Amino acid sequence: MQRFRPAILHAIARDIIAALGTRADDAELVAEHLVGAHLAGHDSHGIIRLAQYRDHVRAGKVVPAATVETLRETSTTALLDGHWGWGQVIAKRAVDLAIEKAAAHSIAALSVRNCYHVGRVGVYPLMAAERGFIAQVWCNGHGVCRVAPWGATEPRLATNPIAIAIPGRGAPLLVDITTSVVAEGKVRVAKNAGKRIPEGWVLDARGEPTTDPADLYDGGSLLPLGGREGHKGYGLSIVVDLLGGALSGAGCGTLTDRVGNGLLVQVTDPRAFTSEDEFLDRVDEFTRYLKSSKPRAGVAEVLLPGEPEHRVAASRARDGIEIDATTWKQVTALAAELGVAVDVDPA
Amino acid sequence: MQRFRPAILHAIARDIIAALGTRADDAELVAEHLVGAHLAGHDSHGIIRLAQYRDHVRAGKVVPAATVETLRETSTTALLDGHWGWGQVIAKRAVDLAIEKAAAHSIAALSVRNCYHVGRVGVYPLMAAERGFIAQVWCNGHGVCRVAPWGATEPRLATNPIAIAIPGRGAPLLVDITTSVVAEGKVRVAKNAGKRIPEGWVLDARGEPTTDPADLYDGGSLLPLGGREGHKGYGLSIVVDLLGGALSGAGCGTLTDRVGNGLLVQVTDPRAFTSEDEFLDRVDEFTRYLKSSKPRAGVAEVLLPGEPEHRVAASRARDGIEIDATTWKQVTALAAELGVAVDVDPA
Repeated sequence: MQRFRPAILHAIARDIIAALGTRADDAELVAEHLVGAHLAGHDSHGIIRLAQYRDHVRAGKVVPAATVETLRETSTTALLDGHWGWGQVIAKRAVDLAIEKAAAHSIAALSVRNCYHVGRVGVYPLMAAERGFIAQVWCNGHGVCRVAPWGATEPRLATNPIAIAIPGRGAPLLVDITTSVVAEGKVRVAKNAGKRIPEGWVLDARGEPTTDPADLYDGGSLLPLGGREGHKGYGLSIVVDLLGGALSGAGCGTLTDRVGNGLLVQVTDPRAFTSEDEFLDRVDEFTRYLKSSKPRAGVAEVLLPGEPEHRVAASRARDGIEIDATTWKQVTALAAELGVAVDVDPA
Repeated sequence: MQRFRPAILHAIARDIIAALGTRADDAELVAEHLVGAHLAGHDSHGIIRLAQYRDHVRAGKVVPAATVETLRETSTTALLDGHWGWGQVIAKRAVDLAIEKAAAHSIAALSVRNCYHVGRVGVYPLMAAERGFIAQVWCNGHGVCRVAPWGATEPRLATNPIAIAIPGRGAPLLVDITTSVVAEGKVRVAKNAGKRIPEGWVLDARGEPTTDPADLYDGGSLLPLGGREGHKGYGLSIVVDLLGGALSGAGCGTLTDRVGNGLLVQVTDPRAFTSEDEFLDRVDEFTRYLKSSKPRAGVAEVLLPGEPEHRVAASRARDGIEIDATTWKQVTALAAELGVAVDVDPA
């Protein structure tokens, strides 16, 4: 395990992505996203992805030099075709354009199709909240499904996340959740580690509860959010598919076999309804009120959504990011293969 | 138990509400809402509420003759002050205005404050979906809280529902869910019936799981949606409070002691992104695909969100609505008290 300054990891990721045929500014964006995932504590979405990116570029699943095209546009809306470029580049373009439109017309809605994986979805509404806007992102996954409809056994839905950020006087509030009970990655981690999973995550191929993570990959399914009330997560997941995939034409579920994300990005300017100061005061008062609730036994502190990630980010920005030896070896090998110099300067 | 034609119940409810000092057209709306709750199978939101409405009118909690005021307005947004009129009247006004704005500018967002209970929230996005629009309603409850923050013991949030409707070739899809694990009413029903509740609904005053519904009313709290992943329901509930209560200035949690609902109504015209036919085809294809998943053992059929209510409505519209003797006696006594003629003509 070695510890690196974020800037070092950023430079390596950027140069590798550029060497895969990406324009310089787009490579910066993708690298920023990967390092941002480490900063937020989501190492599974960090530089470990670079080898997969190389494979997907070679297989034509992502088109590094693609440019985003606007297919339809009104003063408040647009439909973007990403032409299978980097999801991070396309989603940021959608957010930027939504902010521009919401700044002029109070609200905006941007729809996105033909978009490779956008990575950590919470990043996008945060971009808007950091500029004083509320943002809601509905992100379907199409081409691969793990979640079955409520009461059913055969997968028809991806983990279909919802990410919503609301500006505050401190860091924005960020709700960034899958509409499945957990992300599929947690089941995969348990499987690779030879561990059982809690009951309530997965059904086997016959639709019976199981604690064996391998059952998911043997005809099983991931349950929707909600436990006994899983019809609620199922309902939200359908909404994500229709807002993200049907409005945009990206496609829903495995009705398309191309793997990617369809998005709806909604941006709202709070100043359409009240002054910025008043809104921030209300958010501030409410979050203090939430945190003043007495914790349960064994709980140190009541936290707000986004707060754990924000704390990890502060400590990792200061102390550096730990990368395990296997991942580091893989990344340096990839760099060597692509002729990218690695400035090995651990934090 | 007696069975009544919906029109009979509508006339009684309308005349009682009018006799409480409500304008004729507003009384029609409130009555339509109450009968609609019966039609959807939610009898707890039906004419059983009339006695409570009388009490709340007399206590000044609702102002029957109030008119809705527009405090701020842009081409795409508005902030409405309901002046504590009937929630059903105010929320419908917000939806109608949002549809009008979205028809002209593709999308709209309406914020509502000083609003008495809106009743069954799903009704409002349905109004938009039946006219071809997508609608998302974020409805906070303020003045009374039952849900504690995740990891905490003291209530800070109401059951804060989210209701989203999406047009389809058949009945619209309707997701209408509380962000608490269940509605508080279900706990109250169990308490009144002397029954236990499932573990995972309620924590007692010390923050420990309980199956005694009385614990909720003895310093306990209702859990957020999500079971072991209750931080997700907690996050969504916060979003509802801020979108419904902070944008509008209605107030969040018990930071105000006046009981009511704060709303954000977002309406989107799918035609901003694709043709109406293409959108409806995509929704139709996706819903058929969901329903084609093999049911689990013991499940007759895979259902869509909103489908059960839609079926109940069809059968009750045909066969009449059953009202228990106690409720009927209460309603007829109220009618007599207010000088309202009851045309007793059971179905």
